[in-house]
Amino acid sequence: MAKKSEKITPWEVSGNVDYEKLVKKFGLRKIDENILKEIEKYAGELHFMLRRKVFFAYRDLKWLLDKYKKKEKFFLYTGCGPSGPLHLGHLQTWVFTKWLQDKFDAELWFQFTDDEKFLFKDKSYEEIQKWTYENMLDVIALGFNPKKTHFLIDTKEANLMYPEAIKIAKKINFSTIKSVFGLTEQANIGQIFYTSMQAVPAILPSVLAKKNIPCLIPLGVDQDAHFRVSRDVMPKLGFYKPAIIHGIFLPPLQGITGKMSTSNEASAILTTDSSKEVERKIKKYAFSGGGATLEEHKKKGGNPDIDVSFQYLKMMFEPDDTKLEKIYNDYKSGKLSTGELKEYTIKKINSFLKQHKKKREKAKKKIKKYLK
Amino acid sequence: MAKKSEKITPWEVSGNVDYEKLVKKFGLRKIDENILKEIEKYAGELHFMLRRKVFFAYRDLKWLLDKYKKKEKFFLYTGCGPSGPLHLGHLQTWVFTKWLQDKFDAELWFQFTDDEKFLFKDKSYEEIQKWTYENMLDVIALGFNPKKTHFLIDTKEANLMYPEAIKIAKKINFSTIKSVFGLTEQANIGQIFYTSMQAVPAILPSVLAKKNIPCLIPLGVDQDAHFRVSRDVMPKLGFYKPAIIHGIFLPPLQGITGKMSTSNEASAILTTDSSKEVERKIKKYAFSGGGATLEEHKKKGGNPDIDVSFQYLKMMFEPDDTKLEKIYNDYKSGKLSTGELKEYTIKKINSFLKQHKKKREKAKKKIKKYLK
Repeated sequence: MAKKSEKITPWEVSGNVDYEKLVKKFGLRKIDENILKEIEKYAGELHFMLRRKVFFAYRDLKWLLDKYKKKEKFFLYTGCGPSGPLHLGHLQTWVFTKWLQDKFDAELWFQFTDDEKFLFKDKSYEEIQKWTYENMLDVIALGFNPKKTHFLIDTKEANLMYPEAIKIAKKINFSTIKSVFGLTEQANIGQIFYTSMQAVPAILPSVLAKKNIPCLIPLGVDQDAHFRVSRDVMPKLGFYKPAIIHGIFLPPLQGITGKMSTSNEASAILTTDSSKEVERKIKKYAFSGGGATLEEHKKKGGNPDIDVSFQYLKMMFEPDDTKLEKIYNDYKSGKLSTGELKEYTIKKINSFLKQHKKKREKAKKKIKKYLK
Repeated sequence: MAKKSEKITPWEVSGNVDYEKLVKKFGLRKIDENILKEIEKYAGELHFMLRRKVFFAYRDLKWLLDKYKKKEKFFLYTGCGPSGPLHLGHLQTWVFTKWLQDKFDAELWFQFTDDEKFLFKDKSYEEIQKWTYENMLDVIALGFNPKKTHFLIDTKEANLMYPEAIKIAKKINFSTIKSVFGLTEQANIGQIFYTSMQAVPAILPSVLAKKNIPCLIPLGVDQDAHFRVSRDVMPKLGFYKPAIIHGIFLPPLQGITGKMSTSNEASAILTTDSSKEVERKIKKYAFSGGGATLEEHKKKGGNPDIDVSFQYLKMMFEPDDTKLEKIYNDYKSGKLSTGELKEYTIKKINSFLKQHKKKREKAKKKIKKYLK
């Protein structure tokens, strides 16, 4: 049988994701030592997600940093599609975005694509609104600077967004949408239009400031499709193309291919999971790269590269390179058992979530600060 | 050669418009004596555009009047696509709408589809905004009750409209758009989405009032396509289907087929044309049903049914049935010459436009009263 081919659209990620292939297919640049040096020069340090190439590719990032060098500051744009509880994979991009905000003292426009989720999911408008509220709490909990962070809920800021969206929409035809997103004639007409709304925050600050401001978009690589389409449009409207930095997906519990997803309870750790629940999920589901038996593991060692717990540490929960390397080596040699690796990962995740939940609770009183 | 087949979409009207055929094709009901009696019962009289079947067809009008009888009042919804100066054909529908507002003491929601015109015309956003302003002046000049009339400019009221539009859009696919509007894969994605925005005012007052309110839409029959699509959607969202009353097109100067259009200067009389200009256009362009020579006309008579000047009188400028009948008979017999008929028509149009221009000037100070 043929290998299941990957599918990467903003609404579906399936099959084995081959990031090397995506770089070529989408026409991205790979994050390399040169660009890392550039970033370090301005940021003073490198986030571990950069050092470890969790953010692995980019578009126009050199151009953006050159602008920054010439005192032309950029703003950040990222977003959240509110259709259910959030999981660790969602937070990963935003933890990195927060670091960018802090290091580059950047304004952040944070889009909540409630229209998208309503149009693409079999959920009511009201349910999507509920999740918009819930998801905002998680975003605020990550500590974005309220003075420099602006939430854009698509249906609430339509007066600002729709007029810009139609300017973008006028330059995109259905034929393009079909080929880039794989939408068919059975797609509803809101879905077909939607990408214009996702493009807007990349130009909106420039529209409001009445001058061109460079934009950097940290995103999961599945979202690149939107900007493959709209980046071509923006110069036609007189705006810069936004720069992009692409993250790999935090893997689902079952194995290191694909993307953590809320639709499958067994695949995701939610931001609202109890510590017991996290423990249960990791112990029960987290795919292990260890030997078949403890005996065998001690003898032959394990494979951290396919071990989901190790990947969580590497991608999100163990910022300390020395510690991570030791775990890697010990697991590979068999010195560290799967049980011990899982225990460590559970401890790390629960320590993060404990803090997160406290901040999430406090966020309820802070929402207004982030809305226009 | 085959007869040029008609094409009737909101964006193109060409060929011979056969209204009888449209009634069948679109599944409309014809305005007949029964429904006229019903209207007269509540309105106290019949507008000459009804008596003369200028409004010739409807959907669900009996249902609407039954509701009215049971003290369930309806609101009116009509609109204007602002892409250039307005001509008499535009005003015709609204003159009738004003009568409906007065007779049924109805709220009117008046949509300015600036998004549509931007998306469908090769014009800039700024130019469309300019025409929105200019067209509002004409609408206000017609004397709608400012306390009961609400202007909805799509891009300015997107906060209200976009959330409802996506609810409608979710239930319409591209396949339907293709077959109803004839849009292709080359259509831009704003055009494809647009019909959802045109549907919104038919439900918006119900959304805002949190209860179902019947709606009546007076429109030119080319606009029916939008509601053939969205009327099926509205009950699925819990709303009444809007009732519709359809007008025939005020003919272009060149002849009684088709529709007056601003794109062809020689086809339309604009609301801003000077009296000299009106005179010149009617004398030079208005298709005549008269004999080839004055001699022949006096002998054999003319044909008012294909005479454009006569049609203008019948459809818009001679409300008096007795006078109109005399003109009809005198022209048919040859007693009234084409020159005389044209002079009378010029006088009538200029008398209307003189008043209209005065009111249009005063309208500049009234715009705020009509905006939300």
